[in-house]
Amino acid sequence: MKILIVGAGGAIGKIVTAALKEHEVITVGRNTGTIMADISSETAVENLFKQVSNIDAVICTAGDSATDNLSAMNKAQFMVGIQQKLWPQINLVLAGMQYLNDNGSFTLISGKMGELPVKGSSGKAFVNGAINSFVMAAAQEMPRGIRLNVISPSKVSDIGGDELTEAYVRCLETAINGKIIRIGYNNKR
Amino acid sequence: MKILIVGAGGAIGKIVTAALKEHEVITVGRNTGTIMADISSETAVENLFKQVSNIDAVICTAGDSATDNLSAMNKAQFMVGIQQKLWPQINLVLAGMQYLNDNGSFTLISGKMGELPVKGSSGKAFVNGAINSFVMAAAQEMPRGIRLNVISPSKVSDIGGDELTEAYVRCLETAINGKIIRIGYNNKR
Repeated sequence: MKILIVGAGGAIGKIVTAALKEHEVITVGRNTGTIMADISSETAVENLFKQVSNIDAVICTAGDSATDNLSAMNKAQFMVGIQQKLWPQINLVLAGMQYLNDNGSFTLISGKMGELPVKGSSGKAFVNGAINSFVMAAAQEMPRGIRLNVISPSKVSDIGGDELTEAYVRCLETAINGKIIRIGYNNKR
Repeated sequence: MKILIVGAGGAIGKIVTAALKEHEVITVGRNTGTIMADISSETAVENLFKQVSNIDAVICTAGDSATDNLSAMNKAQFMVGIQQKLWPQINLVLAGMQYLNDNGSFTLISGKMGELPVKGSSGKAFVNGAINSFVMAAAQEMPRGIRLNVISPSKVSDIGGDELTEAYVRCLETAINGKIIRIGYNNKR
């Protein structure tokens, strides 16, 4: 498969990139990677998909958010997660769904705080919740057999590389669509 | 109780306002209500809480989002929900938590599409998911016994007024905190 990995230089990105080395992997980052592109820019993402043809899968393992104690949070901090984790991933899907090969897949990233938040996590939690709900909704409208799922990991230090790799392979190679894959936790509320 | 109701002129707002008439209700809206205020403005919300003292509860029943078929959605449409439903409600909580009476409560609004989205709902779904996760996170950091919950209704035409009123009364009068109250659907995935 030809796979674009956005955020390959991050902790999760490194594990996933190493595990997928049998595939043709093209790394994308703002400042690093085979291709440099700012995925929050609609033009940049459109150009990315025009530049690299014949893509089977897009994996995004990147996305920042800012958080703090709630009483110290302000609008600018909430907007970091929207501008750097939520919108770029939506943007990847909106543009990429036109270009991906038939039966291709998108695998986005959210995080445990969206479902099981702790104190001081509001700036992360709301972004992760937004990504999960976006995936459940948008997966229903993917064209040409394309699938869309999201990996929701616990802290990287709390999860096993094997479990993580297996989850990404499941998203790439099985028929699952619209799923939230929880890594390192169960959402049993 | 002295209760601020934001969005009292909407379909849900009307039902709730009528049901709470035994209380001292102050309605707030951008263009209607006892007090006019744009709750997306940090200054306006801060002024609102300075102007009206001794508030026991804030209920928000308002918030717009834009949606369409996914292939027709663009950034501007996704941002409508952020600017008109997500951020204003976060803003209400951030400012109001400093002013509400001890043991007061916030009751926000999300919607079924956050958990059980259908085709064409991505622009609603992600906002509702964000609000749900924000509430679960932020409720853990409310000061002075203040509580924060969210009503997640199905379409107004599909829900009973009694069920809705009961849910709001539960948020006002019981000890629940950090809960998503589902109206007109069960989230059994």
